[in-house]
Amino acid sequence: MLIASEKRIKVGTRPRERWRKEFGEWYNDVLIKAEIYDHRYPAKGMGVWRGYGKKIANRVYGILKKMLNENGYEEVQFPALIPEKIFRIESEHVRGFEAEVFWVTRGGLTELEEKYVLRPTSETPMYYMFRIWINSYRDLPVKIYQIVNVWRYETKWTRPLFREREISVFFEAHGAFASKEENENEVKLATKIYATFFRKLGIPFIITERPEWDKFPGAEKTYAFDTLMPNGRALQIGTVHNLGQRFAKAFGIKFQDKDLKIKYVWQNCFGVSGRVVTSIIAIHGDDHGLALLPSIAPIQIVIVPIPYKGFEQAVIQKCREVYERLKNAGFSVVLDESDETPGEKFYKWELRGVPLRIEIGPTDIKEKEITITRRDTFERIRVNEEKIVDAIRELMNKVEEEMKKAAWDWFNSKLEIANSKEEVGKLLEEGYIVLTSWCGDEKCVEDITELPGVKILGALVDENLEYIKPKHGKCIFCERKAKYLVAIAKSY
Amino acid sequence: MLIASEKRIKVGTRPRERWRKEFGEWYNDVLIKAEIYDHRYPAKGMGVWRGYGKKIANRVYGILKKMLNENGYEEVQFPALIPEKIFRIESEHVRGFEAEVFWVTRGGLTELEEKYVLRPTSETPMYYMFRIWINSYRDLPVKIYQIVNVWRYETKWTRPLFREREISVFFEAHGAFASKEENENEVKLATKIYATFFRKLGIPFIITERPEWDKFPGAEKTYAFDTLMPNGRALQIGTVHNLGQRFAKAFGIKFQDKDLKIKYVWQNCFGVSGRVVTSIIAIHGDDHGLALLPSIAPIQIVIVPIPYKGFEQAVIQKCREVYERLKNAGFSVVLDESDETPGEKFYKWELRGVPLRIEIGPTDIKEKEITITRRDTFERIRVNEEKIVDAIRELMNKVEEEMKKAAWDWFNSKLEIANSKEEVGKLLEEGYIVLTSWCGDEKCVEDITELPGVKILGALVDENLEYIKPKHGKCIFCERKAKYLVAIAKSY
Repeated sequence: MLIASEKRIKVGTRPRERWRKEFGEWYNDVLIKAEIYDHRYPAKGMGVWRGYGKKIANRVYGILKKMLNENGYEEVQFPALIPEKIFRIESEHVRGFEAEVFWVTRGGLTELEEKYVLRPTSETPMYYMFRIWINSYRDLPVKIYQIVNVWRYETKWTRPLFREREISVFFEAHGAFASKEENENEVKLATKIYATFFRKLGIPFIITERPEWDKFPGAEKTYAFDTLMPNGRALQIGTVHNLGQRFAKAFGIKFQDKDLKIKYVWQNCFGVSGRVVTSIIAIHGDDHGLALLPSIAPIQIVIVPIPYKGFEQAVIQKCREVYERLKNAGFSVVLDESDETPGEKFYKWELRGVPLRIEIGPTDIKEKEITITRRDTFERIRVNEEKIVDAIRELMNKVEEEMKKAAWDWFNSKLEIANSKEEVGKLLEEGYIVLTSWCGDEKCVEDITELPGVKILGALVDENLEYIKPKHGKCIFCERKAKYLVAIAKSY
Repeated sequence: MLIASEKRIKVGTRPRERWRKEFGEWYNDVLIKAEIYDHRYPAKGMGVWRGYGKKIANRVYGILKKMLNENGYEEVQFPALIPEKIFRIESEHVRGFEAEVFWVTRGGLTELEEKYVLRPTSETPMYYMFRIWINSYRDLPVKIYQIVNVWRYETKWTRPLFREREISVFFEAHGAFASKEENENEVKLATKIYATFFRKLGIPFIITERPEWDKFPGAEKTYAFDTLMPNGRALQIGTVHNLGQRFAKAFGIKFQDKDLKIKYVWQNCFGVSGRVVTSIIAIHGDDHGLALLPSIAPIQIVIVPIPYKGFEQAVIQKCREVYERLKNAGFSVVLDESDETPGEKFYKWELRGVPLRIEIGPTDIKEKEITITRRDTFERIRVNEEKIVDAIRELMNKVEEEMKKAAWDWFNSKLEIANSKEEVGKLLEEGYIVLTSWCGDEKCVEDITELPGVKILGALVDENLEYIKPKHGKCIFCERKAKYLVAIAKSY
C-alpha cells in the first residue's frame, strides 16, 4: 500500500452542476472540445470521429472483439447496399424498417433498375448468404460479427452517437444453430458477454425482456440493456434477440442434420452502437469534461512542468526523466512541453479525461516528491519520487475500481421500487428508473406510456435471463397476480 | 543452419498452369473456396469478406495502420453520405466523379429535399471539415486516415476486389500542410511508406508519374504503384496525389501563419484498396490455391496426423505434443483432428495457403523425425523432433524471404525495354510491362493507347520521385530528345 502511506489531500466532491442540469449541451460541448466526435458535419444526424475519439472507440470495441473472438465468433464484412428484393423477403422485418430506410435510386445520371436499401441492420443480406453457406450440420454453428456503419432515416430529433441518420459504429453479431436449445444457450452467452463488457467499462445497467410491442422486428424475444444518463433518462445500450426460426423459414436456411432430416436453423443476433461511447462520456464525466478509465484512456498520464524563473531547466529535465521511467514501465504517457500555461494545460487534459496528472515544480524536486492528481476525484496525492512507478500502478488500479464503483453506486441510487401507481408517476418525475410489480398485461401500463417520454423498459431479468420476481405479490395496477418486476423510466 | 543439415526432398516446380492461363477463373475460385471473399452476393460488384479473408485483410491493413501511426497520422472516420452541395464545391473533382457516383434520393417513403452522394472517395467531406478545424499554423499539419467502404457506379465489368461498385476496403490518408515544401516532402514520405508496405507483403511494383490525362480529378500530380497479374496485365495498387492548393482554394482552407499572413494550406492524399489482398493472392498463389507469407498467414502451421491401424493413439498423442510445443513457442498452429482423410486435409490447407504443413505418422515417431512441407515450393524437409521449434523458426524466415524474392524475380523477368515502336507492340502482346524512351508528348503514344487494354502507365520514377532517365537518348516515337522512361502495359 504505497499510496495509503502518503499524504492525501481531498479537494472536494466532483463538480457536476452543468453535467446534470444541462446534460444535452454539456455532452455536445465535450464531444467537440475533447475532439471525440464532430457533429458540425453539414448533414442532419451525421458526424465525424476525430483522432482522439477514434482511439477511444477502437479500444472500447477492441475489448468486445476480443471477447467474441474468444467465444468462437469470426469477424466478417458485408456490403452496405441491400438489393430491394432481398430486403423485402421477411415481411415483419420490412414493416418494421420500411419507413426509416434510405434508398439508393440513381447511379451516375441513370435511374437504377433495381434500387438498393442502405442497410439499417444486416439480417437480410446476411441470412441470404447463410442459405448458400449452410447445407449440413457440419456447417453449423455459424457465429459471425461485423463492425460497420448503418443508416436510419430519422425524421425527428437526432443527437450525436445517441440517435443518428448514419450510425457510424454498429457492432452486430449473428448466429445460426442446429437446435432450439443451442440457440437459447447462445442468447444467454451473448447476454453474459455484454454484461461483462459493460462492467469492464464501468457502465451500470439493468437487463429487461422488452414487451411484445417493443421487440425487434422479426424477433421472438428481445432482451435489452439500459443505463441512465445524468438527466435521469434511460438509454438503451445493447440488445440481444432470439430470432427463433422466422428468418430461417423466410430465407430458406436449411441443413441436413445428423439424423439425415432436413431442418431449419435457429438464430439469434445481438448488437451495440456508438452509445457505448456516449455512456462512457456521460457516466464518468463532470463539468470539467471527460474522465476516462485507465484501461480505456489513450493517454493514461500527463506530465505538466511547473516552471519557476531560474528553475526552468531543472524542472524540464526532471519531467523528462519521470516521463522516460513511466514510458519504459509501459504506461501511455504524455509530457506537455507546449508553450501554454500550466492552467491551460490542466484545462485541456482534464477535458480529455486523462486519468492521472503529474505536476513537477522546483519544490517537488527539492523534496524528492511528486504530486499526482486524480481526474475522477481531483484528489492530490504526494508520492516519493523513487516509488513513482509502483505508486502509479497501484493508483491506476484504485482509480479503475473506484470509478466503476462510483458509477454503480450512483446508478443504484437511481433505481427505486414503487408500490402504487401514484408513486410510479412521482418517481419518474424525479428521474428514477422505477421498478414495480406487474401482471404483464399491456392495458395496465397504457396510461403510463402516455406520460411524455416514459417507456416501459420491460420485465427485469438476471444474466441467465430468469425473471426477477417482485416481492409484492400483486400487480399494482390491477391487483391480479404479479408475474414480473417491470422497469419503467423516462427514456431516450 | 538447422535445416541445411537435414535431408531436403525437391518435389518439383510450382504447378502454375491454370494460375497463368485461366487467371480470372482461378482467382474467383480461390476467393470462394478459401473463404476469402464471396462474390455470390446478389448485387453486381459487391461481395462479402468471410472470416478467413477478413483475418488476412486485418493483418495486411494492420501493417499499414502501424506505419501511418508511427509517422504521425491519426485514424478518423467520416460519414459515407456527402450532401450534394458539399460534393459540388470543387468543379474538376465533380466532373471526374459525377458519372460514377450513387445517389441517395429517398428516405422512407419521402423524396429527400437534399440528396446525398455515397462517397466515391472522401476529399470533399474531409476538406469541408478542414476549413472548420484549421485556423492557425498551430493547427497544422493535419495528418489523418480512414479505412472505409466507398462506392462507384461501374457500368462495365466488375471483378471481386479488383473493380467493384462497393469497394469494401478503401484505406485513404489525407494531409494538410503550411508550406509547399512540407507538402512535397510528405508526398515523398507517403511514397516511401507504400514502397515499404508492398515490400513487406512481397508485392513487386514499379512507380510512375501518371500522365496528365490520367491524373486523379483535382490533383496536380498523381504517382501510382503498379504490379503485374499472372495473365500479364498490370494492376494499379496504390496512388499518391499532390493536390497543391486547388482544394484549399475551393473549400477555403486558410490559416494564419507565423508571419501573421493568411494563407491557403497545401494538401496531398494517398490510398490503397482491396487490390492489396488481390495482389497477395495472385502473386504468391498457384494451381493449388493461396500461398501466404508466414508474416501474413492467420494460420502459419497445420499438423496433419497420418494414422496407421494400430498406431492411431500414438500418432495423435505425438501430434498434440508437437502442437503444444509450437503453440507455446508463439506460432499460430492448427492440429487438424477432423475425420477427413490426410489427402483431403492437404487439399484444404494448401488451398488456404498455410505456409508449413507437418505430417506425423508411425515411421516419424520411430525415427524421431518430423516431415515439414513448404506450401510455396512443396519441398519436404525432415527435421529432428528435438529441434522442431528452432527449425521451424528458421524455415519460416527462409520461406518469407524466398517467397518475396521469387515474386520480385518473376516480376523483373516481365519488365522489358523496347527500342522501337514495333518492339513495344510485340512485347505488350507477350505480356510484358514495356519500358521505353519517351519525349513526354501525348501524341507520340496515341496509337499505342488504341491497342485493346493497353495503358500508358507513365514516366518511371524512383522512391524519391526522381525520374529514371532512359539510357536511349531519343524518343522512340518521334526521335526528339527523350525525357522519360515510360512504362506501358496491358492493364486492368
